[in-house]
Amino acid sequence: MPAPDFEARRAAVARHAELAVPVGGLGRLAELGVWLAAAQGTCPPRPPARPRVVLVAADHGVSAAGVSAHAAGTTARLVDAVREATAPVTVMAPVAGASVRVVDVGTEAGSGAADAERHHVRAGSGRIDREDALTGAETDRAVEIGRGLADEEVDSGADLLVPASLGVGATTAAATLVAALTRTEPVAVIGRGSGIDDAGWMRKAAAVRDALRRAKPHSGDPLALLRVAGGADLAVLTGFCAQAAIRRTPVLLDGLVVGAAALLAEKLAPGARDWWLVAQRSPEPAMDVVLARLDKEPVLDLGLRVDDGSGAMAALPLLQMAARLLAETGTTTSADSDGATDPAADPADDPAGDDADDAVRA
Amino acid sequence: MPAPDFEARRAAVARHAELAVPVGGLGRLAELGVWLAAAQGTCPPRPPARPRVVLVAADHGVSAAGVSAHAAGTTARLVDAVREATAPVTVMAPVAGASVRVVDVGTEAGSGAADAERHHVRAGSGRIDREDALTGAETDRAVEIGRGLADEEVDSGADLLVPASLGVGATTAAATLVAALTRTEPVAVIGRGSGIDDAGWMRKAAAVRDALRRAKPHSGDPLALLRVAGGADLAVLTGFCAQAAIRRTPVLLDGLVVGAAALLAEKLAPGARDWWLVAQRSPEPAMDVVLARLDKEPVLDLGLRVDDGSGAMAALPLLQMAARLLAETGTTTSADSDGATDPAADPADDPAGDDADDAVRA
Repeated sequence: MPAPDFEARRAAVARHAELAVPVGGLGRLAELGVWLAAAQGTCPPRPPARPRVVLVAADHGVSAAGVSAHAAGTTARLVDAVREATAPVTVMAPVAGASVRVVDVGTEAGSGAADAERHHVRAGSGRIDREDALTGAETDRAVEIGRGLADEEVDSGADLLVPASLGVGATTAAATLVAALTRTEPVAVIGRGSGIDDAGWMRKAAAVRDALRRAKPHSGDPLALLRVAGGADLAVLTGFCAQAAIRRTPVLLDGLVVGAAALLAEKLAPGARDWWLVAQRSPEPAMDVVLARLDKEPVLDLGLRVDDGSGAMAALPLLQMAARLLAETGTTTSADSDGATDPAADPADDPAGDDADDAVRA
Repeated sequence: MPAPDFEARRAAVARHAELAVPVGGLGRLAELGVWLAAAQGTCPPRPPARPRVVLVAADHGVSAAGVSAHAAGTTARLVDAVREATAPVTVMAPVAGASVRVVDVGTEAGSGAADAERHHVRAGSGRIDREDALTGAETDRAVEIGRGLADEEVDSGADLLVPASLGVGATTAAATLVAALTRTEPVAVIGRGSGIDDAGWMRKAAAVRDALRRAKPHSGDPLALLRVAGGADLAVLTGFCAQAAIRRTPVLLDGLVVGAAALLAEKLAPGARDWWLVAQRSPEPAMDVVLARLDKEPVLDLGLRVDDGSGAMAALPLLQMAARLLAETGTTTSADSDGATDPAADPADDPAGDDADDAVRA
């Protein structure tokens, strides 16, 4: 796994300390600029010119257990909404300057999304509270599809990737994977997902409990977990997140399904997490477990719980602004050469750069 | 004071409940859309097409007390940075689709911003720890200038206003005004402002203590407070915030100086606050007092402490997205007519609209 560019990171931290703003005055935006500089290997970083959302759609057999507010097997409807540009992510993407691609990797047969782009692994996953989601071969193929999608996007010029999911029942599988991988109690990972009521929550809790019993023996093996308790979308997203990092491409994460896939990808490809930024604090409780494990602090906390990449669209303008701030904000040397600003902001005081780091982290 | 349109608000809440997203799934973005609909008097709201930042610049005599990281009387430098588009707000504004105007209302004489737009109240305010900031006539004139600026912008087609400040020493005056108006102890309102060190903080605390002693007898009178412990920029911003509300124009607030002016404007023109949204949680401690008094929850918490409107630029894309989401997201009736979504999301269940409110506030 390649690491982000330490020298570019260092240059960005030093440059922030020279900007004609109060020490630490750009807050989180300073950190975003530093992260982007390190990922791009250049300072100042370029504002992402071709950010790309890749939505991965699949049905989950476990939705038959009544764990979703949507009817079982209706993921194709969500795909249609993306193609009609009525899904939240497609409404928000133009404001953020992003384009959206949706790939059907596992909707139910005959469910109506026939004209969507397809890289089908299988039609719907197995019902994970009773049976495996995928076969071993299907799991491998799904991960390869995810890697291939990331390669395609990077080769086509995408300079920031946003993996996202569409899948009725997907948060049940995602919560199970997070619990299995982190040995967390089921009750601590089960949320309202698509907007279920208390009875739905109880059904979801039972399904996660049963699926977790099946998954636990495989808790150290990401591919086995995807096979036993994941699904085509989760496996594709896992491959996608890992390959994006291998291709040195910054990634904006949002939502529990993507979060679970990222956790598995980090296990498969340690260090991949350095290429990722978490866009938004998803209200799903399992996401707190993911954040703690990945050691990430989300950029935003908007209470968005649409897992279609919406939260990443909300954060993307901030990343654009952060890149421009590093490139275009005046420096104390240019704007204030008489030394009127706080001496603590002068990087010459501390050639080791500790103060500069303070400026970014304060 | 006109009130935002209750019917448009109600229509926006009802429409949110019909959208094909999980109940409450749009989180804070739903609230932003409702607020904008009420302010515009129409549902769905229009994405702001001509958002406008109006920066008001003035020097503060109290900066001679060493309360700022900037040298006393150097506000003109900050004006230059805006005109050269190297100030953070000018770097961020193009990403947010906003334009920026800067008006010099009180920089020191001969300080070099001669070619900036001027509506001068006076050259620098009095040193508030020892003398009044302005005369009564200057205060009245400054408030009128602020009202006039808001009128000009609304008449020119601005459909969202962002008042902001440039002023060396301004947070010392702002903190004093907030403390006086809310009867808060000085130590609870004094922050790092432009990035001062501990010694600077002590000087600022002494200045606020002394200014507050002078201001306290006037704590119920906003205009007297502006005269005794404010400044030209604060008085202009107070008039601006009040007049924007009178002109039924939504306002994005950011930063302590604007926050203090807003607090005074609400006192002068009760109800004006309904037209305002607080963009970002400023780390200045006095801002917490302002937020509590105005009963506002900021949209963002990025740790930005550049008072030039940067935080409003960070929040503006979210407002654009919120408007579009109300207009363009599919509804359950169009996208999911078989009732597959959560019955709780069906507004027909509750004609009184309580559920719909839940959908927005959940």
